[in-house]
Amino acid sequence: MADYDVVIVGGSAAGITCGITARRHYKDKSILLIRGEEQVLIPCGIPYIFGTVGAPEKNLIGDGVLKKHNIELSIDEVSDIDRENKVLKLVRGDDVSYDKLVLATGSQPVQLPLPGSDMDGTFSIKKSVPYLERMLAKMADISHLVIIGGGFIGVEFADECKKCWDLDVTVIEMLPYPLQTAFDDEFCSEAHTLLESRGINVLTGAKVEALQGGNAHVEAVKLDDGRELKADAVIQSVGMKANSTLAEKCGLDTGPTGAVQVDRAMRTVDRDIFACGDCAEKVSFFTGEPSPLRLASIASTEARVVGANLFGITRAYPGAIGVYSTIIGDTAFATAGLTEDTAAEAGYCAVAGRSASVNRHPGMMPGGAEMSLKLIFEKQTRTIVGGQIMGAKSGGELINTVSACIQQSMTADQIATFQTGTHPALTASPVAYQLVNAAEDAIGKMGPC
Amino acid sequence: MADYDVVIVGGSAAGITCGITARRHYKDKSILLIRGEEQVLIPCGIPYIFGTVGAPEKNLIGDGVLKKHNIELSIDEVSDIDRENKVLKLVRGDDVSYDKLVLATGSQPVQLPLPGSDMDGTFSIKKSVPYLERMLAKMADISHLVIIGGGFIGVEFADECKKCWDLDVTVIEMLPYPLQTAFDDEFCSEAHTLLESRGINVLTGAKVEALQGGNAHVEAVKLDDGRELKADAVIQSVGMKANSTLAEKCGLDTGPTGAVQVDRAMRTVDRDIFACGDCAEKVSFFTGEPSPLRLASIASTEARVVGANLFGITRAYPGAIGVYSTIIGDTAFATAGLTEDTAAEAGYCAVAGRSASVNRHPGMMPGGAEMSLKLIFEKQTRTIVGGQIMGAKSGGELINTVSACIQQSMTADQIATFQTGTHPALTASPVAYQLVNAAEDAIGKMGPC
Repeated sequence: MADYDVVIVGGSAAGITCGITARRHYKDKSILLIRGEEQVLIPCGIPYIFGTVGAPEKNLIGDGVLKKHNIELSIDEVSDIDRENKVLKLVRGDDVSYDKLVLATGSQPVQLPLPGSDMDGTFSIKKSVPYLERMLAKMADISHLVIIGGGFIGVEFADECKKCWDLDVTVIEMLPYPLQTAFDDEFCSEAHTLLESRGINVLTGAKVEALQGGNAHVEAVKLDDGRELKADAVIQSVGMKANSTLAEKCGLDTGPTGAVQVDRAMRTVDRDIFACGDCAEKVSFFTGEPSPLRLASIASTEARVVGANLFGITRAYPGAIGVYSTIIGDTAFATAGLTEDTAAEAGYCAVAGRSASVNRHPGMMPGGAEMSLKLIFEKQTRTIVGGQIMGAKSGGELINTVSACIQQSMTADQIATFQTGTHPALTASPVAYQLVNAAEDAIGKMGPC
Repeated sequence: MADYDVVIVGGSAAGITCGITARRHYKDKSILLIRGEEQVLIPCGIPYIFGTVGAPEKNLIGDGVLKKHNIELSIDEVSDIDRENKVLKLVRGDDVSYDKLVLATGSQPVQLPLPGSDMDGTFSIKKSVPYLERMLAKMADISHLVIIGGGFIGVEFADECKKCWDLDVTVIEMLPYPLQTAFDDEFCSEAHTLLESRGINVLTGAKVEALQGGNAHVEAVKLDDGRELKADAVIQSVGMKANSTLAEKCGLDTGPTGAVQVDRAMRTVDRDIFACGDCAEKVSFFTGEPSPLRLASIASTEARVVGANLFGITRAYPGAIGVYSTIIGDTAFATAGLTEDTAAEAGYCAVAGRSASVNRHPGMMPGGAEMSLKLIFEKQTRTIVGGQIMGAKSGGELINTVSACIQQSMTADQIATFQTGTHPALTASPVAYQLVNAAEDAIGKMGPC
C-alpha cells in the first residue's frame, strides 16, 4: 500500500490549487492527487468551447502544473474512505493511505425533474470532455436551441452558440431578468437588451413544464403558460449541486445545501480531512448564512486556505463574497458581494452610489469604452457591501479592487479618498475615476459622517 | 466686491476635483474657481497630443463639469492674498472675498541650468495650449529630437513622437535605466529593450553638459563624456516644481521641496486656506518623509480631502503611495508604492514575490497578453509596501487592487486568500491569478507566519 502525507481527491480548480499551495507550504511532504477524468477542463471556459475556443481539447488544464510542483497523479476513483485507518479504497488501483485528506470532488449539474428530460438532444453542462464533444457535434445538426436558465452560464452559452452557429437561440428564465441573482435591475435589463440585440430570444418570467418530442428525440419545450417552443436541442443550466456522496458514505457531515460541512479552516468534523471547492458547504461573507455560490474563483481561494492549513492552521476563510464577471458581445458585466436587492433582503439599510465614465482620457484614446460602476453601502456603518460594473473589459480587474474594498470593510469615505493610479491609455481620468466617484455619490445620499 | 464661501485658485485636476467635491459636500455654498488659462489641458494626456490624440484641442477638460456643479469660473490671475481681510487681489478683475480659500496652483517644469537652453528649438513640458501648439508645429520641421529625462513623461513623449513622426528620437537618462525611480531593474530593463525595439535611442548613465547651436537655434546636445548628439529640437522632462510664489508672498509656509506646507487635513498654517495638488507639499505614505511625487491622481485624491474638509474636518490624507502607469507600444507598466530598491533605501527588510500569467484562460482567448506582477513585502510584519506590473493593459486597473492592498496594510497571507473574480475573456484563471500567486511566492521566501 502506497503511503502519502497528503492525498487530494479531485483534479479541477480546487484540487490543483490545493496541491500547488500544499507544495508551496510543505516542501517535503508527499502529495498524491486522484481524479477520475483523463483530461481536466478549464471549468469557466466550457461555454467558450461552443464558440470562441472551438473544442474541448483547447480548453484543458494540462498536467504539467502537477509535475512542476512534484504532485503525483492517479487517474482512478475513490470508492471508500476508511477514516479509522486513514486509507482510501480505489476502484482500479491499490489502497492508498493518507495523513491528511482533501476532498475536492466538485459538483454536478442540477437536473430539473421535467417530463421528457431523458430524451436525445437534452443536455446539462457536465465537466467531461467526451460529453462536451458529443454536445458540440450536435450543434452542427440543429436549428433551434433552447437554454433553460438565464444565469451566467446560460447567458454565456447563448451568446457563444448564437455567435458561431446558424441557430435560433432562446433563453428561458423564471425571474424577471437574466443574471438577476447577481445584478440589480438596471444592469440586468441592459444585459437583457444586449442579448436581444445580438439575436437571442430571452423569455423571462417563464417556467418550463415539460420537454416534448418523438422517437425519443426532443422537439419542443412546453412552458407552464401553454406556449411551445421548437427545440432540436435543450441545455439545462440551472445550477450545480455538490458531489458529497463519498463524504456522506464515510460519515462526514453535510450542510444545509447538501455539501460537505467545513469550519473556517476548511476542516470537516474529521480533523485530518479537509474539503474545498464546489463540494464544500459555504456561508455568506456578509450574513454567515448558507451560500449557494459555486465559482472556480471561490474554489481556488478555499483551496489556498486548505493547502496552507494541512499541518497547522494559519488561514481562515471568512465566507464567500461572490466575485464574478461575464461578457456579452464586448460588454463586460462584473459583480461582487451584495446587490441593492440582496442587501435589502438580508436586512441591510442599503445606499447605492453610481458613476460612469469612459475608461480612457481623453475618451477618444484607442480602446475607450464606457464603464459604469455602482457601489452598495450599509448606511449606518457606511461600509461597502457590494459593487456592480458594466462596460469596458477592464471591469474584469476593477471588480477585484471593489472586492478588496469589501474584504477590508472599507467605508465610503475611505473609498472616496482611495489612492488610484490612472493613465490616458488605460483608465478613466483621475477626476472621473469611477470607484471614488461612486463612493462620493453614495456619501451624498447618506449625508456627512 | 464679490463674496464667495469658497474660492479655488487653479483649474487643473486638483482645482476641478476640489470644486466638484466641495459642491457634493456643501450644496448651498457659493464656489468660485479662478484660473489663468482660457483652456485646461488633461495633464496626463499631454504626451499623447504629439501622436495618438493629435492636437491640444482634443486633449481638453471642458468647462461643462464646472457649470454642472454650479461652480463659477473667472479667467484671471491672483496677484495677492490679503489673509487678514480674506480678500484676493486679481490682475484684471475686481477684488474677491473668501471664507475658505484653496490653492491649487499646480507646478511648472524644472529647467536644468544648461548653457544654451534658451535657444530656439528647446522646450520643456508646459501645461499651455499655445505653447504646445508651437511645440507640435515644430515636430513637422525637424529630423532629430532629443529628450532629456527618461521618466514617465520623457518615455511617453519619445514613444508618441517616434510613432507618429519621421524622427530620429533619443532619450537621455542619468540613471542606469529609464523609469528607474518607479521600477526595479528587471522591469526597467524590459522598458529599455522595448523602447529600443521601437527605434528609440536610449542613452542611460548619461549626463547633458550643454546645448549647442548656431543662429540662436539648437543643433546638438553635448554630454559630459564629450559625445555630441545632433538635435533639431530638445525637450527637457526632468521633473516639476511647485508654483508656490503666491503662497509665499502672503506668508504661508513652504516645505522641504519648496511646495506649500499642509497638514494631514490639507490645511496650511492659515486654517482658512487649504492647498492640494502639485503646489502642495507631500509626504510618503510609508516613511512620512518629503515626497517628490507629482501626479494628477495624487492631486485628485488630495482635492477630495480638501473639498470635504472645507467647513469641518472629516478626511485625512495619510501621505502619497504613488500609483501610476504608462504604456510603451502595447505593453503597460504600472507601479504602486515602494520598489525593492526604494524599500531597501528606506530601511525596510523587503521580500519580493512574483507571478506571471496570460490575462485570459485559456490563453488563446482573444485579447490575451502576458501580465507579470511583482509584490514587495516587509518581512517582519509581512505587510505589502509595493507592487509593479508589466504587460496587458488591464494592468492599469490591477495596480489599483494592489493600491487597495497597500492602503489597507494587507499582509501576504491576506492577499494570498484574496477573493478574486475571474473570467476566461477578462482575466487570468483563478488558479494562476497573479495577485494571489505573487503573495504566495513571497510567503515561500518569508517562511510561514
